[in-house]
Amino acid sequence: MKQENENRAFEETLDPNDWESMRKLGHKMLDDMVNYIKTGRERPVWQHVPDRVKACFRRSVPKHPQQLDEIYEEFVENVLPYPIGNIHPRFWGWILGTGTIMGAFAELLAASMNTNTGGGDNHIANHVEKQVIDWIKEMLGYPPSASGVLTSGCSAANIIGLTVARNVKSGYDIRLQGLQSASKKMVLYASEEVHSSIQKAVELLGLGNESLRLLPVNQNFQIDLQALKSTITEDRKVGYLPFCVVGAAGTTNTGGIDDLQGLANLCLREKLWLHVDGAFGAWTALAPKSKNKVAGIERADSLALDLHKWMFMPYEIGCILVRNEEQHRAAFSLMPEYLAHGEGGRGLSGGDLPWFSDYGFQLSRGFRALKAWMSIKEHGSCKYGRVIQQNIDQAIYLGKLVEASQELELSAPVTLNVVCFRYVDSDMNDDILDEINRQIIIELQEQGAAVLSGTVVKGKYVLRAANCNHRSRREDFDFLVREVIRIGKELPANLQL
Amino acid sequence: MKQENENRAFEETLDPNDWESMRKLGHKMLDDMVNYIKTGRERPVWQHVPDRVKACFRRSVPKHPQQLDEIYEEFVENVLPYPIGNIHPRFWGWILGTGTIMGAFAELLAASMNTNTGGGDNHIANHVEKQVIDWIKEMLGYPPSASGVLTSGCSAANIIGLTVARNVKSGYDIRLQGLQSASKKMVLYASEEVHSSIQKAVELLGLGNESLRLLPVNQNFQIDLQALKSTITEDRKVGYLPFCVVGAAGTTNTGGIDDLQGLANLCLREKLWLHVDGAFGAWTALAPKSKNKVAGIERADSLALDLHKWMFMPYEIGCILVRNEEQHRAAFSLMPEYLAHGEGGRGLSGGDLPWFSDYGFQLSRGFRALKAWMSIKEHGSCKYGRVIQQNIDQAIYLGKLVEASQELELSAPVTLNVVCFRYVDSDMNDDILDEINRQIIIELQEQGAAVLSGTVVKGKYVLRAANCNHRSRREDFDFLVREVIRIGKELPANLQL
Repeated sequence: MKQENENRAFEETLDPNDWESMRKLGHKMLDDMVNYIKTGRERPVWQHVPDRVKACFRRSVPKHPQQLDEIYEEFVENVLPYPIGNIHPRFWGWILGTGTIMGAFAELLAASMNTNTGGGDNHIANHVEKQVIDWIKEMLGYPPSASGVLTSGCSAANIIGLTVARNVKSGYDIRLQGLQSASKKMVLYASEEVHSSIQKAVELLGLGNESLRLLPVNQNFQIDLQALKSTITEDRKVGYLPFCVVGAAGTTNTGGIDDLQGLANLCLREKLWLHVDGAFGAWTALAPKSKNKVAGIERADSLALDLHKWMFMPYEIGCILVRNEEQHRAAFSLMPEYLAHGEGGRGLSGGDLPWFSDYGFQLSRGFRALKAWMSIKEHGSCKYGRVIQQNIDQAIYLGKLVEASQELELSAPVTLNVVCFRYVDSDMNDDILDEINRQIIIELQEQGAAVLSGTVVKGKYVLRAANCNHRSRREDFDFLVREVIRIGKELPANLQL
Repeated sequence: MKQENENRAFEETLDPNDWESMRKLGHKMLDDMVNYIKTGRERPVWQHVPDRVKACFRRSVPKHPQQLDEIYEEFVENVLPYPIGNIHPRFWGWILGTGTIMGAFAELLAASMNTNTGGGDNHIANHVEKQVIDWIKEMLGYPPSASGVLTSGCSAANIIGLTVARNVKSGYDIRLQGLQSASKKMVLYASEEVHSSIQKAVELLGLGNESLRLLPVNQNFQIDLQALKSTITEDRKVGYLPFCVVGAAGTTNTGGIDDLQGLANLCLREKLWLHVDGAFGAWTALAPKSKNKVAGIERADSLALDLHKWMFMPYEIGCILVRNEEQHRAAFSLMPEYLAHGEGGRGLSGGDLPWFSDYGFQLSRGFRALKAWMSIKEHGSCKYGRVIQQNIDQAIYLGKLVEASQELELSAPVTLNVVCFRYVDSDMNDDILDEINRQIIIELQEQGAAVLSGTVVKGKYVLRAANCNHRSRREDFDFLVREVIRIGKELPANLQL
């Protein structure tokens, strides 16, 4: 007994000494977070991090415990007021999702269970993830027999999809021998508007960016199918090995959607892998009036998408679906002794599900499935479809406001939820207008009025509103247009042009 | 006004209609989670998911909203009771972390802010992540000038580190030209005990598993430096391009730690990149009595590690550190028009920090830094060090219990927090003992007593206790040893051997 007490005296834990103080703090946090999300509209979309706050984040590592209340107070004072702003109703910068309070609660639950969904198949998180993937397939009309795995986002999903494509189409054991043993240069195709994560994946996979052949787009910012076809033919003539076409379902720049049926037909004829990057746009499949725009997406050999964008779940959650489960597993499955999968229905590894770590590059995997599971139950697929449609309709509405305005010009057709437009003034040349539009974005941010991002369309710098925001209302777009025009008119004097 | 009302009538949101009901549900969840973690010791470590529960996870996608209370009730009934078990004091399976309640609270806060830490540098999450990375470098004695980025875990960190190594050492523009343009076969080195994620990374990167040269280990399960040196020399002779050595700081199988000073010296002489996989073992650097075991880790060119294992934070959080920031950026930075980084101190993109998406393959990135920031403040580096040391001391204690027992045999030296041992009986041959030890693991799980995993050491199937558990006490290991012996003695009759 004495010895046990002595041992215990030496044994510490990271659990709190005082559970009730910790519980009280948790309740305060939760109240604050509900209020924070509920009152988001009342705050500026974005504001500067003051220098005195930045300085706090340069202090060296704490050696000893700090008071819990003080830590949280520091969070409330120095962290909470300075977000990027994507939970605000007037945030339309880049393609960021909005999140929900239930999604945040689910993260609390998932982190409390702290389960690892990589392996040890006979536990519940694997069943939840399996169901979420089944639901995603069901919502998108993707074949039920396909495999899938949740990822940190679409970048990881693109990496996984392209790895399977590369391995399947190489024609030899590329996992063993690598690209260094390739007899022909493997090349793949996408439009100039393809997302940068495809280039990053291609580089990571050792294919080299020059193997990614970028084709021109038509006026709807869709890949030119004729140009694609003739490039493939020419590449074969010079001895390359064309293996994959990457279709875009919702480009980042303009929301353009490639002709997916056309791509699927072409890939079938040419025996190429069709990978579709549907980061946000894949979910158009749920929108009652617009779903035909992504017809054919279910024919992709692999389909990458996010749930933290247009499904409005908190970061991070993406998904890769692969039509042929065997090919998916063959690209990633690995079973060292310490990961031996059980059988026979007994014990933690004796379950009836595959290990999710066999379908991607993560071995340790959190329980990101839970927020998807709870969110899809909370809203149901129909409501998601209506809100996605609402975002598209709001984009069309904004497009009409732009077209109705003398001071604004639409820079690309509004095909989905992205509106590219530009402040114009016939007395000014394009260089000056580029600068004015650049400054409009900054002024909107500085004033906390709205967050847009900028991009270049056909050589001109334009404003871009990407609407993955379930909190936006039409009045927010009315406000945006008024502010852009007001700032655009005031700027030339300030800029002393 | 009429029109506005009409518009509003059509506009939905995913925010709750009734915030107060949602708030009430959140408080209930939080209370339940505090209780769940607080009372973990009273539950079985693991239990089967019943078939009736599994069946619930085969239902098709809900089309319409479900009641919030019902969703949560389903979670409480069908999810919460069936975890993998790693928050329990007697879970020592694989290398899984334990988590903390503050870590779970931090996930609630992070998901409520729902900030994207990929870009748009002028917001607080980037400053928090920068500070966390600075703290990690400080704790591990890694150079302050090094760059780093938080990842989903060590698998992703290994991928990033090896990508930088591959790109730097290839000697040409591999991002552009790919491995298909390599004039020499690039090869890298590790011990036979290296983690499978290294093989997965090598395959993903297009190098091919045959380019990963696995060297034998000495009796301490460390890479054989002489064999390494001569293999490099031979590989050069046959025209290969040796480019990297992967050192292990804590192998999964036995907790072995390579001679990192020896590897660093060798890499310096041979002009090779030293990547260290320090998934859990890197944190030995904090342990007062054991830190010398990882001396030299600070000399690695890249260092991959987890915080969700031996730093006890909830999944997912890992980190890659790279000594040369320019080389790190050069491997991943990409700046399309829509991600143009601002300057001049104005607006969301006008900050003074680099974009974290330029240091890895994720563009959208959650706020995983927050749980690290709050946890490190909660405990301080010294307490982490003491608890890590405690885990090592407990492993040594278990090792002694094993050695003191007639019925048990130690299968590898206890160098860190992993104990490989085996139930033995001189009347039985090795095949029978393999099966008995296999069954002991399953029985321990089935009885909810403890979770160990199994592995093969020197051809024999052994029990493996990996201790990354801040809740374990010495009495738990006393209990484990008693149970293993009891089950081992009972089994032969049951197995009808």
